Amino acid sequence: MKTITRIEQSLASAIAAGEDPACPPKLAGAIRHAVFPGGARIRPQLCLAVAQACGDDDPVLSDATAVAIELLHCASLVHDDLPCFDDAPVRRGRASVHFAFGECLAVLAGDALIVLAFQTIAAAGGKSPRRLGGVLGTVASGVGMPFGIVAGQAWESESRVSLVDYQRAKTGALFVAATTGGALAAGADPGPWRALGDWLGEAYQVADDIRDVMADSQLLGKPVGQDVALGRPSAAIELGLGGAVQHFRQLIANAAQSIPECRGATQLRALVHAESERLVPFAMTQALLSDMSKSTLPVATD
Amino acid sequence: MKTITRIEQSLASAIAAGEDPACPPKLAGAIRHAVFPGGARIRPQLCLAVAQACGDDDPVLSDATAVAIELLHCASLVHDDLPCFDDAPVRRGRASVHFAFGECLAVLAGDALIVLAFQTIAAAGGKSPRRLGGVLGTVASGVGMPFGIVAGQAWESESRVSLVDYQRAKTGALFVAATTGGALAAGADPGPWRALGDWLGEAYQVADDIRDVMADSQLLGKPVGQDVALGRPSAAIELGLGGAVQHFRQLIANAAQSIPECRGATQLRALVHAESERLVPFAMTQALLSDMSKSTLPVATD
Repeated sequence: MKTITRIEQSLASAIAAGEDPACPPKLAGAIRHAVFPGGARIRPQLCLAVAQACGDDDPVLSDATAVAIELLHCASLVHDDLPCFDDAPVRRGRASVHFAFGECLAVLAGDALIVLAFQTIAAAGGKSPRRLGGVLGTVASGVGMPFGIVAGQAWESESRVSLVDYQRAKTGALFVAATTGGALAAGADPGPWRALGDWLGEAYQVADDIRDVMADSQLLGKPVGQDVALGRPSAAIELGLGGAVQHFRQLIANAAQSIPECRGATQLRALVHAESERLVPFAMTQALLSDMSKSTLPVATD
Repeated sequence: MKTITRIEQSLASAIAAGEDPACPPKLAGAIRHAVFPGGARIRPQLCLAVAQACGDDDPVLSDATAVAIELLHCASLVHDDLPCFDDAPVRRGRASVHFAFGECLAVLAGDALIVLAFQTIAAAGGKSPRRLGGVLGTVASGVGMPFGIVAGQAWESESRVSLVDYQRAKTGALFVAATTGGALAAGADPGPWRALGDWLGEAYQVADDIRDVMADSQLLGKPVGQDVALGRPSAAIELGLGGAVQHFRQLIANAAQSIPECRGATQLRALVHAESERLVPFAMTQALLSDMSKSTLPVATD
């Protein structure tokens, strides 16, 4: 079975497990809206790729870990889109959850998705109960305090922010949870997989900053120019667009290089490079950088 | 050590585990504000009382379960107080989290508390890893979909609501998680402890409805008259105040009677009766019901 099919099927089962004919139907609808149809599902793909590279001897647990990571990512998108944060009307090319279902149900859908993530892992410990605590703790530290994605989002409420701390928490932490969680679900040492999550998370955040400046909203599936408008830290603003693209390429190279020698190394490197091309297409950045050297770019490069 | 001291100490350790000098300080402050000083801590007390009645052979796990239940309760209060729900300025006699820290940090504090609850249980599985999945699943079902407290809150967004389904999910589910989670943490069968959580949860919700109508806001530590103002289902509105008080007393009697014969039964019954008296003081309701029979009560009893 293709990895993406395995992920979509596991997500569908997890969401169905949280439904019942007697549950509040609008909340059930809001939760489905938040998860389907999905984006690139890069975090669960990464999680499963690492689990496979480590032998994947308990696919029920590695599937649950991948699903939990994606549900937590979806929860963070729902809450980040709320009026008090980005007030984003559009997500993944259609109405954001609070635009489609209202603010109350968006808050509750995010909460329910966080709970469902841990519930999904908790239900998957049958074969390897001794792995459960480690997997849960690792996934939780990718989202919670002090260094997970809620901490990353909270840095936006502080007057002094380090770009590195902010990006590592806001995006990197869940990528690290994906790689190390995948290893733990397969009973392997998570240590060697940390760097891959770190580099890829940083690359992803830089790509997001680049796309926020240069893409159009149809391509991105959400509003653009938000970082400047909301005064958020951004690599594209701090380093200039050319500097940010170079930085992105270096991060991808570091990510690919960090992959430990193992059976699935080639497949993982291919995933990293495919994701890099999806995020910041080479041809587009080449054209852009060539334009920049002619100083015709309308973007401020500080 | 007194149970309440044990709970406060465990809560303090759990919150400290989510902090770091390098974490966003305002979010850390908002989380502390949501948890300290606490209310009656009735849910974790109930959880530990059941664990003790079942032998409490793994106090690290039962403490963690009790703490998780309380953190999830605090998270639900923070999110329920948000502008899109009750927009409550006051909670536990002082500023609600979003009034003190702003809406963004209130959303994030609730999210972080949910994650921390599961993180706390995950870290406590050292002695009895095989109990972890059951405890986590039980605690999660008290908060998540389809029948936990998020579902209860979501019923307020539906046009057709059954009072029983609403109350069972909004309040009862977490009481059931407290009793059955306490039993599971001690390695016992949760089945016989379900009824206690059910009855007590229903009693608690009816008490809340009664207090919303008759108490003053200083006594209650939050605004009163909210149920009528927000058109929420309420036993005090549906049954009248006298009917609601009688219903409350019957539920407390059922709760006390449901306690299985065991070493801690007497202590548990005493806890149930003390909580009943704290929630709806006997002398006050007697005076009130006597006034009602003279038809001087200003409350509509439909």
